[in-house]
Amino acid sequence: MKQKRFLLDESELPRQWYNIQAEMINKPQPLLNPKTKQPVKSEELAHIFALECAKQELDTQHAWIDIPEEVQRRYRYYRSTPLVRAYALEEALGTPAHIYFKNESVNPLGSHKLNSAIPQCYYCKQEGVTNVTTETGAGQWGAALSYAAKTFGLECAVYQVKISMQQKPYRSSIMRTFGATVTGSPSMSTRAGKDIITADPNHPGSLGTAISEAVELATTTPNCKYTLGSVMSHVALHQTVIGLEAEKQMEMAGEYPDAVIACFGGGSNFAGLAFPFMRHQLKGQHAKNIDFIAAEPSSCPKLTKGKFEYDFGDAAGYTPLLPMYTLGHDFKPANIHAGGLRYHGAGVIVSQLLKDGYMRGVDIPQLESFDAGLLFARTEGIIPAPESCHAIAATIREAQKCKETGEEKVLLFCLSGHGLIDMTAYESFLNGDLINI
Amino acid sequence: MKQKRFLLDESELPRQWYNIQAEMINKPQPLLNPKTKQPVKSEELAHIFALECAKQELDTQHAWIDIPEEVQRRYRYYRSTPLVRAYALEEALGTPAHIYFKNESVNPLGSHKLNSAIPQCYYCKQEGVTNVTTETGAGQWGAALSYAAKTFGLECAVYQVKISMQQKPYRSSIMRTFGATVTGSPSMSTRAGKDIITADPNHPGSLGTAISEAVELATTTPNCKYTLGSVMSHVALHQTVIGLEAEKQMEMAGEYPDAVIACFGGGSNFAGLAFPFMRHQLKGQHAKNIDFIAAEPSSCPKLTKGKFEYDFGDAAGYTPLLPMYTLGHDFKPANIHAGGLRYHGAGVIVSQLLKDGYMRGVDIPQLESFDAGLLFARTEGIIPAPESCHAIAATIREAQKCKETGEEKVLLFCLSGHGLIDMTAYESFLNGDLINI
Repeated sequence: MKQKRFLLDESELPRQWYNIQAEMINKPQPLLNPKTKQPVKSEELAHIFALECAKQELDTQHAWIDIPEEVQRRYRYYRSTPLVRAYALEEALGTPAHIYFKNESVNPLGSHKLNSAIPQCYYCKQEGVTNVTTETGAGQWGAALSYAAKTFGLECAVYQVKISMQQKPYRSSIMRTFGATVTGSPSMSTRAGKDIITADPNHPGSLGTAISEAVELATTTPNCKYTLGSVMSHVALHQTVIGLEAEKQMEMAGEYPDAVIACFGGGSNFAGLAFPFMRHQLKGQHAKNIDFIAAEPSSCPKLTKGKFEYDFGDAAGYTPLLPMYTLGHDFKPANIHAGGLRYHGAGVIVSQLLKDGYMRGVDIPQLESFDAGLLFARTEGIIPAPESCHAIAATIREAQKCKETGEEKVLLFCLSGHGLIDMTAYESFLNGDLINI
Repeated sequence: MKQKRFLLDESELPRQWYNIQAEMINKPQPLLNPKTKQPVKSEELAHIFALECAKQELDTQHAWIDIPEEVQRRYRYYRSTPLVRAYALEEALGTPAHIYFKNESVNPLGSHKLNSAIPQCYYCKQEGVTNVTTETGAGQWGAALSYAAKTFGLECAVYQVKISMQQKPYRSSIMRTFGATVTGSPSMSTRAGKDIITADPNHPGSLGTAISEAVELATTTPNCKYTLGSVMSHVALHQTVIGLEAEKQMEMAGEYPDAVIACFGGGSNFAGLAFPFMRHQLKGQHAKNIDFIAAEPSSCPKLTKGKFEYDFGDAAGYTPLLPMYTLGHDFKPANIHAGGLRYHGAGVIVSQLLKDGYMRGVDIPQLESFDAGLLFARTEGIIPAPESCHAIAATIREAQKCKETGEEKVLLFCLSGHGLIDMTAYESFLNGDLINI
């Protein structure tokens, strides 16, 4: 009987994260202070983030960074996550391709986000911080942070994108179950929120507005730090546990991917899966050249239609200027159900890699994403998050090409989260009420 | 670093189920035909169930029954489930007890129910059945059956307890996502349903009413069989994969349980975890005498306050007469959130074992169950199903006794499912709106 799932012993789990910045041929351009237009230093970033995260953010020296023992201990609550061969999906597609997925949805919080929530809260605790705050879109990051904060004894305040809060009411219950306070953004509780509501009383919120509010709270509250679930380079760093595990697991399966595919909001699950594989490409170490594919929604296409330029990470302009592919920091994404992909820009590392041709973006319309998600559910038994449906759709496109050409390509994608909190989206889809954008 | 999770290689997964009936000293009393009062034969049961399931139901000869290759293949989609040491819960309780849980919630459908849905659909398919039907309370069984039916190409119709359908709206979306049709019970679509509604137009539904409707559909539709998620002995048989795995995993952990604990509705997850351990007790093979504890809700206390007698399995009296602990087949359980535990009787094997003193029941009030669930979520990071909260509460009681006595007992419980579809229940609990029954 052919093996379906591949898991690592706890002794084989990664003890270091992989910092791709140290090995990139063209380093990312520096983050700029918007006032002085000078490169931002880690001490400046540490006004917002934990100091250790600020240092990791700008570290272009060390390719490997030790995972603190305490973080490793907590990773063991759910890691390794399974690498799974999608036999039933392959059969349904009639494709000769071998499809694998890294199943981050079995994580207790339902997505890959916990991989960075744990170290961010750990560093905050180490540095004497008592309160953390953040933004959340679909709520996956907020849920992960709420739990991580609780386990380290930190208070947690979450700004949730208003439209996502309405679409996914259970998500705020989950955060409250873990003891966090949750506020819909834009709200009247910050200056940034008030300004946005004044300009547009019906603003549905975006990751950009929620980030502005959380950053404002962090910078105006003593002992409070901001944390972020994507975009930043230190988040991508923490997420590399996904790809480092997957690499060993693919070896167990006796295969090596021809394509590595992930959905793309700010880039965290994409970076996490892709960077450990990409390191061999940067150094020409492997015979195969992997096709790295980032799947974004057609309605928020920064990779395929954005411009590479300096822009703010948030709506109000509180963050440093970031060199990135962007649709503009005032871009208002459509109300698609994949709330985690409704972000105007791409992280600086990914942006540089895209510019340099190491990866490519594809854009997926909403209905195609749910078609893919439904097929995946009915074959593999897991209802995928609307975000992850984009990765599945992109994988199916590749698998169908293989069907035409007869190539037995090995396709690896990240199932970043499950969709059990997104059943209103599936309900709309099944009822034929979803618009195709 | 101490190991947190224990997983088995696919090569070590069980290839046979354990049939405790063959080794019980006092066999269960026979199921009776309500008209003739004669013991029911497997051919009669096969009017309702797949023939192979009917045979397994009455098999008191074979202690081990082969798991079909195709069922084994599908088990590998999610098995083994992890055995987890609950270090964080132990720490929060300050108990010297070692607490382990078998995590059936990482199963793609969110509970242990898939373990029996797969073989039941497999046998139906083998026997030329085209349609399956069932009842579901909280929806865990219905979701599992919907997916299993889809993978075997069977049509699936589910009667869901009306009150559970209202409390957990996403659950029916999940079943629909897997292609099932879902009807609230009591409904006007069957004679049994019409009779119930005529007598009590506001009847909230119960597992008993939904079973009546599904059985009626199965017996009046060609090529349609009824399937059941609990109570029956063949379901308990299929669920023994839980305990067979757990036994090997406890060995990996170098421990043996002093107590084995599970929540109790009809008995499926209890039987699944307990029977493989109990077989040693039946034969006096192990030095330790395990304390087997079934945790039921105070509002539906058949084990602690029911009578051992012959009773129907459903509200309308369509099933054979079963020798069991029961509150009466017309018992209307209160509207607690643990919908899966709202059943009036216990399976015949468990009833005999309880009568013979091999196990005991404890009853848990609703608020104590959610207190336990919240503590578990905030320590171990998994939001438990309201049903599973009862097992956690019973475990915490034992752990607290250990704290008083200083005993380092090993406690093993079944986390039968996650609570992500039950967030309305947690929301009520957090808001202080839940009544204590």
